[in-house]
Amino acid sequence: MITNTYYGPEGHGPYELIDIGTLELEEGGSIPNCRLAVAMHGTLNAAKDNAILVPTWYSGTSKIIEQGYIGPGRALDPTKYFIVVVNQIGNGLSTSPHNTSWDQAGPGFPKVRIGDDVRAQHQLLTGKFGITRLALVVGGSMGAQQTYEWAVRYPEMVLRAAPIAGTAKLTEHNALFVETLVEAIITDQGFKGGDYATAAEVAAGLKRHAKMWTVMGWSTEFFRAGRHRALGFDSMQAFVDNFMTGYFAPMDPNDLLAMAWKWQHGDVSRHTGGDLAVALGRIKARTFVMPISHDMFFSPADCEAEQKLIPGSEFRPIASVDGHLALFGTDAECLAQIDLHLKTLLATSA
Amino acid sequence: MITNTYYGPEGHGPYELIDIGTLELEEGGSIPNCRLAVAMHGTLNAAKDNAILVPTWYSGTSKIIEQGYIGPGRALDPTKYFIVVVNQIGNGLSTSPHNTSWDQAGPGFPKVRIGDDVRAQHQLLTGKFGITRLALVVGGSMGAQQTYEWAVRYPEMVLRAAPIAGTAKLTEHNALFVETLVEAIITDQGFKGGDYATAAEVAAGLKRHAKMWTVMGWSTEFFRAGRHRALGFDSMQAFVDNFMTGYFAPMDPNDLLAMAWKWQHGDVSRHTGGDLAVALGRIKARTFVMPISHDMFFSPADCEAEQKLIPGSEFRPIASVDGHLALFGTDAECLAQIDLHLKTLLATSA
Repeated sequence: MITNTYYGPEGHGPYELIDIGTLELEEGGSIPNCRLAVAMHGTLNAAKDNAILVPTWYSGTSKIIEQGYIGPGRALDPTKYFIVVVNQIGNGLSTSPHNTSWDQAGPGFPKVRIGDDVRAQHQLLTGKFGITRLALVVGGSMGAQQTYEWAVRYPEMVLRAAPIAGTAKLTEHNALFVETLVEAIITDQGFKGGDYATAAEVAAGLKRHAKMWTVMGWSTEFFRAGRHRALGFDSMQAFVDNFMTGYFAPMDPNDLLAMAWKWQHGDVSRHTGGDLAVALGRIKARTFVMPISHDMFFSPADCEAEQKLIPGSEFRPIASVDGHLALFGTDAECLAQIDLHLKTLLATSA
Repeated sequence: MITNTYYGPEGHGPYELIDIGTLELEEGGSIPNCRLAVAMHGTLNAAKDNAILVPTWYSGTSKIIEQGYIGPGRALDPTKYFIVVVNQIGNGLSTSPHNTSWDQAGPGFPKVRIGDDVRAQHQLLTGKFGITRLALVVGGSMGAQQTYEWAVRYPEMVLRAAPIAGTAKLTEHNALFVETLVEAIITDQGFKGGDYATAAEVAAGLKRHAKMWTVMGWSTEFFRAGRHRALGFDSMQAFVDNFMTGYFAPMDPNDLLAMAWKWQHGDVSRHTGGDLAVALGRIKARTFVMPISHDMFFSPADCEAEQKLIPGSEFRPIASVDGHLALFGTDAECLAQIDLHLKTLLATSA
């Protein structure tokens, strides 16, 4: 266990830590007393048919979902819905390398798959709340990967699905991008095979990782339009140092690597012997596929190719020069478009 | 001096090594006995008005220009034109860190700018051949950076210009991408601050550099279309290991870094106190600005913004899912489009 003050209710609460018991893992082994950090908004109605699940993305927590996407009048309206934001395993709030003890601590943390997260969330929703239908599963990036996994694995339970800026099966290009992110961290001498004492010892690797995120996370148009300056940084250097490095620097490297591995291996066609069309054909949810126009690694074309394999689905691209990281909520118009699509989706009968 | 059998006439010839004497450098200092490796095709006519200059790109040499772009019936037709391909300083054939002795060897190599290359080429063309008008300057990527520098610095001498997949002033986004490439190499423990014994000692860094080129050099559409498989590699792994790493692995790390620094600092507005519009307004060449549709770092939009500042210029984008590295010649239709535009350009009166 590594003390890391970044993770905790002060910066990321409120959330509830819920022990779901032992989680068997698809890659073998298990996590005993697996804890999910769960943020809840609104009230589950008597019919238990107003629940919305929001899984989290790489490096993100339930806090940014709350701040960017949830509120009265928004699509994710807590006065209407019971919104459950589940922090993914490894994100630092739920069970993660840095907050685990004994042999699963740090570099000993087992390989966790998107499917493990989804089964853990299923266990939580059915076991703790008795929920058997989800009005919507919606998530961005790795949250979209989990959304697809939900819709394929539990087609009867997911009435509507909105994968934003993510794919059901990771592309080879995207997987290689993740590999370069991982290598930025693990090649830092301070990483010591995961046996560093604090994240600060891996500061150089985390900074390289932040630079690579800067290159791929936004877009060429974002920088040409001076969006980084509009966000309050007077140079690229300041943007990289203060915004991007500032964002990643306090995070635990092993936590990031646990999520990166999961991201890199996301693939719903594991359920169907590698046949993506058959896997996506299983989906019964009303599905809006929502890529972001300038996304450099979950590209609209890749998302559209999958959308065409999902019965009754719609392609609903979001226009934003902020690219993938528009998910952060930096572009108000992007959030407005997402809200509009989600409201339309929630208004459909399912 | 480091022995490196990759660089030489066996793999990259024929070319002539021409000593242009001392080259004063914009960043200070000079290169004594600066040698340019020059490949010539065709014959300079009596009027000396049929010369075409082709500068080279990052990691490339005159060989790939010869193989991909020059030939009877092509736009760059040696039966009509005297085509001079000048290898850029630092590329391993011309004066470069690895082939320099004494204090300028390896990590002691001075900082060379795009402008230094262009003055060296000017010295060569005017001094050795008595050329005062160039029918065309054309280059891709860093070759485009040199093309812009030529057109701004010697507006009377350049009759036509065709910058392909490059910009006159590097964008902040592109500069950061270069920084990540550089860091992939210099963070390799085997790099030893540039004092490695052979390139093989930096193999891990060169491989990371190759992976990052794979992510940004092609495009998401390239991989989705299975173009890497079409090129003969049965997996992404094989493509990275054999094609991309195979390409970069034999190269000298200090040579690559000399070119990377030059690339990162390309900016014609240095001539006009930082005013890009004024600098590009100086251009008298008939200019076709030719970005590649799926280029992830010299984006069409960035190129078009510059094109609008060039009097009488035309925006002539090339469609290719191969992205930036379509320059390699992997997409025959891309080469055909380039040829067509160059023929049109060469047919214009200037």
